[in-house]
Amino acid sequence: MTLPLSVSGQQFIAGRRVASGEATLPSLRAADGELTGYHFYPASREEAAAAAVAAEQAFPVYSQTSPDVRAHFLDTLANELDLLGEDFFTIAHQETALPLPRLQGERSRTSNQLRLFAGVLRRGDAFGVRIDTALPERKPLSRPDLRQYLTALGPVAVFGASNFPLAFSTAGGDTASALAAGCPVVVKAHPGHMATAELTAQAIVRAVAASGLPAGVFNMIFGTDIGAELVRHPAIQAVGFTGSLRGGKALWQLAQQRPQPIPVFAEMSAINPLIILPQAVAARAETLAHELVSSFTLGCGQFCTKPGLILALRGEGMSRFTQALKDAVGQVPAQVMLNAPTLAHYEEGVSAFEAHPNIQRLAGSDERVIGRAQARLYRAPASLLLAQDPLLQHEVFGPLAVLVEVADEGELQSILHAIPGQLTATVHAESDDGPLAQRLLPALSEKAGRVVFNGYPTGVEVCDAMVHGGPWPATTDSRGTSVGTQSIDRFLRPVCLQNVPAALLPPAVQDDNPLNLLRLINGQWTREAISPSVD
Amino acid sequence: MTLPLSVSGQQFIAGRRVASGEATLPSLRAADGELTGYHFYPASREEAAAAAVAAEQAFPVYSQTSPDVRAHFLDTLANELDLLGEDFFTIAHQETALPLPRLQGERSRTSNQLRLFAGVLRRGDAFGVRIDTALPERKPLSRPDLRQYLTALGPVAVFGASNFPLAFSTAGGDTASALAAGCPVVVKAHPGHMATAELTAQAIVRAVAASGLPAGVFNMIFGTDIGAELVRHPAIQAVGFTGSLRGGKALWQLAQQRPQPIPVFAEMSAINPLIILPQAVAARAETLAHELVSSFTLGCGQFCTKPGLILALRGEGMSRFTQALKDAVGQVPAQVMLNAPTLAHYEEGVSAFEAHPNIQRLAGSDERVIGRAQARLYRAPASLLLAQDPLLQHEVFGPLAVLVEVADEGELQSILHAIPGQLTATVHAESDDGPLAQRLLPALSEKAGRVVFNGYPTGVEVCDAMVHGGPWPATTDSRGTSVGTQSIDRFLRPVCLQNVPAALLPPAVQDDNPLNLLRLINGQWTREAISPSVD
Repeated sequence: MTLPLSVSGQQFIAGRRVASGEATLPSLRAADGELTGYHFYPASREEAAAAAVAAEQAFPVYSQTSPDVRAHFLDTLANELDLLGEDFFTIAHQETALPLPRLQGERSRTSNQLRLFAGVLRRGDAFGVRIDTALPERKPLSRPDLRQYLTALGPVAVFGASNFPLAFSTAGGDTASALAAGCPVVVKAHPGHMATAELTAQAIVRAVAASGLPAGVFNMIFGTDIGAELVRHPAIQAVGFTGSLRGGKALWQLAQQRPQPIPVFAEMSAINPLIILPQAVAARAETLAHELVSSFTLGCGQFCTKPGLILALRGEGMSRFTQALKDAVGQVPAQVMLNAPTLAHYEEGVSAFEAHPNIQRLAGSDERVIGRAQARLYRAPASLLLAQDPLLQHEVFGPLAVLVEVADEGELQSILHAIPGQLTATVHAESDDGPLAQRLLPALSEKAGRVVFNGYPTGVEVCDAMVHGGPWPATTDSRGTSVGTQSIDRFLRPVCLQNVPAALLPPAVQDDNPLNLLRLINGQWTREAISPSVD
Repeated sequence: MTLPLSVSGQQFIAGRRVASGEATLPSLRAADGELTGYHFYPASREEAAAAAVAAEQAFPVYSQTSPDVRAHFLDTLANELDLLGEDFFTIAHQETALPLPRLQGERSRTSNQLRLFAGVLRRGDAFGVRIDTALPERKPLSRPDLRQYLTALGPVAVFGASNFPLAFSTAGGDTASALAAGCPVVVKAHPGHMATAELTAQAIVRAVAASGLPAGVFNMIFGTDIGAELVRHPAIQAVGFTGSLRGGKALWQLAQQRPQPIPVFAEMSAINPLIILPQAVAARAETLAHELVSSFTLGCGQFCTKPGLILALRGEGMSRFTQALKDAVGQVPAQVMLNAPTLAHYEEGVSAFEAHPNIQRLAGSDERVIGRAQARLYRAPASLLLAQDPLLQHEVFGPLAVLVEVADEGELQSILHAIPGQLTATVHAESDDGPLAQRLLPALSEKAGRVVFNGYPTGVEVCDAMVHGGPWPATTDSRGTSVGTQSIDRFLRPVCLQNVPAALLPPAVQDDNPLNLLRLINGQWTREAISPSVD
């Protein structure tokens, strides 16, 4: 049989394709688990190490490239992604069961994300320049000339996510922000969409070559357990991950156990509480129920920001709201999930809910459709949340949500205190709910990276202001975001140059400001050059 | 005997003084180990927990205070510190053996550091505001209104350092930056200067009260092993520490083992390599030797930035340089260290150097002066550094340095690759050394938080541009600094508000920009207000 795509299944190491052993990893169709026809070579430990070393060897050159060079590279890569054609979407659809329009939208999101980082580099935000010029006459001690800027952390290991085969995978947000920061990347391809990953990697390799950059700027390996080797390798200086709490925590622990520990930016688990205040329930019970069910079953509930916990304040309209939720869930057809393990995990989650003595199923058919996930809605008492029942602490990935009726504001505040950190928290309020909403805002901001009003958390805008992060276990580092331009900060660290001669200064901190950066100079933000001292 | 100072030795918990058990912790004179007369109560586990809870209870109010309120509080605290009189300096000198002029300078540094953070709050840098306004007509999807700002992380545990009883202790840099960020603080007083800590804490308590803030904004406990209780307490959300690698790593590991891990910003161990290029050796052998010995024996070598490793490139002048180093070390008198354990650690370090078969003592008297540290200079072959000999990996706290003669640039680059992360790296160069210096700069920036030219790393300016940080083991997080205004970032995290009604927005992200902040609005940095949308 001749396969339509040029997919070798080998590792990408410094522009070369490398493999040993047998191609034992099959690419599977999400819909039925059958072979797509493509097979991949699991990377050996030596190949994982070679990929890390390739990134390390590219680092001295790549980290010192000008922002213009990196911006041009990211634009070139974006254009390469935009050229991916029908073949690409066909295999991506086969591997993930995600609908074609969704995949096409995700491709645009991914290439636009790269262009956004190109814009950040041209805008110059990412340099964080702060200069305090010398004060030779200061008493009792003179002040030296001090120039701070942000520099690339080092080679970054990126773990592709199952649920966004483009936007959070090979050329996704972690890769884009690391490359923008000046860090070479080693991607560990997700086993759920390896052919998609390979075609994307081929596009990156073309962009690296067209930009005249060292080939080791981008590397990718295949495998199931090989990620640990990457995280342990001394050349790797940071890790980006989007996936499960278990997976993220394991990588994070490995990184701490290294002789030189490194940061792991893992986006892991959130139940994304959605709070409905009394007037909103009363005024919009049916609309809310309809929209909410659409949100938590969208894409089969396979979003990090799926609202999995509905906290509705008791009052007029609650029974209409509950009935409308049940009706809406009843209308949701069974859906194919990303892959068989994901469906199995979802079914485990459902079984745990079914078996819990204090949790009641409100909606969701008993009928089992082989290979598909049925949406489920459960009801739990507030006391279970307050008792930090383990089943309600972490996300069930899939079209499942839990409704909790909350007695009053006091109970709501106690619940917000009891639940763990979140990516998002949402409030639905009418104008009469305003004072209560205002009192809730600080607690919500303390618990989540993003607070949404009268909307739904699914749909994460890629822009300057986005925060896709939050306190543990939503992420390993609440001070970062994995979506939006601020995500570049994860892969940068400050360096201060003291009394370095003008001829040796990098452009970002030179007196005449050749990059036209906004800089903090002697306590003032300015794009002005530094005038020569007159003493 | 009546003691001159009002020192109760009890814990500071939410403005109250609390103690149980016996005051078994004596304050000791550094010079002779005798009692100063003051005794302190080791905090019980319950008291440590109460201090953490007090900070947690103050958090909702304190974290929401306006920057003006916090700036005024920091200024008030700075003024309180400036009022500390002769009694304070007398006891600080007794407890640490640091000379009075040094302590007076450190007090100015500490109060000016608080004023600098007040300035940062008034300047508004610390809000990091990024706004992307709604695009309701955008196709295919509308864009919501998104407003990002930085918010306080939560209560911070601060561990006082031995070597800076003011600037890195009770009211030091970690406390100042946490308070500026809006985080209440629990200080664990260093056992080496408890009376100094108590008088400083009393000043803070007066400033908290005068500013009308919740008393739990500041708390302090005494004890030796009680710090672990603080780090484990669920109310604590971050840790600041300056001290040994062993101590910092232990706290960092505890923090990772919590059900909800938290960041630990520990500044730990650096040998601060100082590189002397061939022309500099030839041109300035004697001057360099004299200045360098002054730097590594300054304050008995008890600085985090002490240059402990001298890498001199072989060439003309090397023998003059070595002889001048030996002569200068011979002139350094034995000095009293901060306390008896510090002296004991130093003597252990010296013994290890003496016992090493491949390390040779170049200078430093055999004469033992009881209770005092003798400066020592050793010579080690480059091969030991390249082999990552453990003795040359981490700092010996005290007046000791190691000279390594380096054959050529290749060997120097290999050494820079082999040594661990550093707070500082220094280069001495003459103009003919320029091209070599330029080639070294990227490697030095990769290894250290601050790169110094033709100077000495001791002396850390407190300003916007300073970086007192660096890759592991210099610190636990190379992306932070513990000196300078950028240090506030350690205690802040971003939050994004999506479609939050104008009436509920915090001032930093309101349309009319009442705090006059420089904000990133739709991709442009501006202090302009956001004009009402016209659609």
